[in-house]
Amino acid sequence: MPAIDPVALTAALVKCPSVTPVEGGALVLLQELLEGAGFDCTRVDRNGTPNLFARWGGKGHARSFGFNGHTDVVPIGDEADWQHAPFGAEIDGDFMYGRGTTDMKSGVAAFAAAAVDFVTQTPPEGAVILTITGDEEGDATDGTTALLDWMQAEGEAMSVCLVGEPTCPDHMGQMMKIGRRGSLTAWFEVEGKQGHSAYPHRACNPLPALARLMDRLASHELDRGTEHFDASTLAIVTMDTGNPATNVIPAKTSACVNIRFNDAHSGASLSEWLRDESAKVDAAFGTKTNLKIKISGESFLTPPGPLSELIGKAVEAETGVAPELSTTGGTSDARFVKNHCPVVEFGLVGKTMHAVDERVEVEQIHQLKAIYTRILADYFA
Amino acid sequence: MPAIDPVALTAALVKCPSVTPVEGGALVLLQELLEGAGFDCTRVDRNGTPNLFARWGGKGHARSFGFNGHTDVVPIGDEADWQHAPFGAEIDGDFMYGRGTTDMKSGVAAFAAAAVDFVTQTPPEGAVILTITGDEEGDATDGTTALLDWMQAEGEAMSVCLVGEPTCPDHMGQMMKIGRRGSLTAWFEVEGKQGHSAYPHRACNPLPALARLMDRLASHELDRGTEHFDASTLAIVTMDTGNPATNVIPAKTSACVNIRFNDAHSGASLSEWLRDESAKVDAAFGTKTNLKIKISGESFLTPPGPLSELIGKAVEAETGVAPELSTTGGTSDARFVKNHCPVVEFGLVGKTMHAVDERVEVEQIHQLKAIYTRILADYFA
Ligand SMILES: [Zn+2]
Ligand SMILES: [Zn+2]
Repeated sequence: MPAIDPVALTAALVKCPSVTPVEGGALVLLQELLEGAGFDCTRVDRNGTPNLFARWGGKGHARSFGFNGHTDVVPIGDEADWQHAPFGAEIDGDFMYGRGTTDMKSGVAAFAAAAVDFVTQTPPEGAVILTITGDEEGDATDGTTALLDWMQAEGEAMSVCLVGEPTCPDHMGQMMKIGRRGSLTAWFEVEGKQGHSAYPHRACNPLPALARLMDRLASHELDRGTEHFDASTLAIVTMDTGNPATNVIPAKTSACVNIRFNDAHSGASLSEWLRDESAKVDAAFGTKTNLKIKISGESFLTPPGPLSELIGKAVEAETGVAPELSTTGGTSDARFVKNHCPVVEFGLVGKTMHAVDERVEVEQIHQLKAIYTRILADYFA
Repeated sequence: MPAIDPVALTAALVKCPSVTPVEGGALVLLQELLEGAGFDCTRVDRNGTPNLFARWGGKGHARSFGFNGHTDVVPIGDEADWQHAPFGAEIDGDFMYGRGTTDMKSGVAAFAAAAVDFVTQTPPEGAVILTITGDEEGDATDGTTALLDWMQAEGEAMSVCLVGEPTCPDHMGQMMKIGRRGSLTAWFEVEGKQGHSAYPHRACNPLPALARLMDRLASHELDRGTEHFDASTLAIVTMDTGNPATNVIPAKTSACVNIRFNDAHSGASLSEWLRDESAKVDAAFGTKTNLKIKISGESFLTPPGPLSELIGKAVEAETGVAPELSTTGGTSDARFVKNHCPVVEFGLVGKTMHAVDERVEVEQIHQLKAIYTRILADYFA
């Protein structure tokens, strides 16, 4: 079997219009490639979300190296804004253009190519597992989660996992992610009693209560950062009332707050804090605050150790750059994988992800395949 | 000349559809009546606003009693909501129905009828002056103000003035107004710098600044009331941002505050306070607050004295009720007249003013004419 060209594979995947939740041919294409190389493949679709599980090597090996990634992409927006066809995978100069070229069809192509070549050329003592979902960009409720649920039920396991999302801010090899802050969004609706502006004592104005509550939340120092994390942050993102009448005290007002939190907190501890603060303000103002909380992800950390060392050394060997171990950035499916096994994220430069004329430096796809191949070789050495 | 029936005169005025700024025949009708009784009348229209000045007795008398009122009315809203024709002046049971029956064509009819009968039957040593505007309910920029400007230019003067607006909350004779709190509205727009919720330190979030500012304003005790006034009040009436994205810190947010203030403050002193507070918060948060202030009226007071005593005694003699001296309620043209001479407001029950099926108890119109007549008689006695 000749070596797989990760650039050609990226292009083939980009040409599949797999905007979440559409499969678009991407997983079908990968399954064909992987089965041809001796992988056991299973489609683990759930509630219409397409997912692919692929294992080379017997089930139940003590050492199994896992990759995780997604083939779905975000919408293209207005096609007229694009200089290159969004699903064309056109190469222009040093770059390949198209939706998903960085996030993350190049990553999936690089690890699929690395895995196929590695097991073909130097069959390891152990298993190589690929978990690829068709919904990371959407709600992600039936994506990687469905794969992990199915694996647990089937007795399938990864010893460690590398998520191939783009992780480098500016140049190749710069950063890997060993964890992420959690994210919580809270919606507050404060209820009072309507009245006339000239007679505030006859009304119960919810606005001073909301102002006090928001001031207290925004002024509170959640922490000053922890060993591997930046300080947690709280951002008030909106406050709205919609009252056009200056002589009327309105009955209701609302606000929304977003918290990015490190391992000093949990979604539950923060929810309790928010409820406590709301109750204090309600007691002081005679208002009633309704609170709706969504925890998008808990914080997590794979502490620096064998896995991050393995990846760091491989990156440095291929790029000459020792990657920083970071916990910055938004959420990814690593937040699900961390419940299954140690997980680290490493991929190429993500600058243009989700943008118009998303593009990848073609050379970086080759580098990424080389890095992933070296990681596999070192892991099974 | 037979006595004027104030109920018939009210009905004739209600039938004039004088929705601000339309004259509707109301001032023309009054001018005809007053000229017939020997009043010198001048239309003092300015910028399209109709106004009527009427004086009985020579110009420049040392003692002149003035009345002030308006013939314009607020819009009727949806006519289908009315049980009685809005301009029909229908009498049903004890009530006359129609727009302006309480606010304040009955008041104008009562003082016009009282003035005509009084000067006809017992010509006084002095002058009786009526200042009637066609714009009190609108901007009022060319209404009573235009009359007072014209009077000053012409050397016309009222020694004292009674505004005939409805002043009684529930029953006849209950309350007169000897002053009003001022009203100020302030619009705040706080500017920061947009950014991502996950990285608040790269943005400048205007929302915590607004929350702090509003909390400071709402928590501040302006005063505890003064000799004749209730405490000043501040009501936050709206806070708005309109940001639907929970991962975005918005660049701008806004709020509006309404202050009703007594004689411990002025529009200027409060404006300075608001500017100072905004500047403090801007300095603390790095934001820029744009402030727009509208002073609808300064507070004013005619301290209890000869005029309020005169009116109180007349009211008690006719109704058996000693009226309370109050400074509550919204603005009226008394805020302009107070720069000209001592001014007090007394009129009938205002419950249905501006409402659908506005109505007046017919008996109260007779009572009001009797009270105004007694006031004239006592003043010139
Ligand atoms: Zn991605
Ligand atoms: Zn009025």
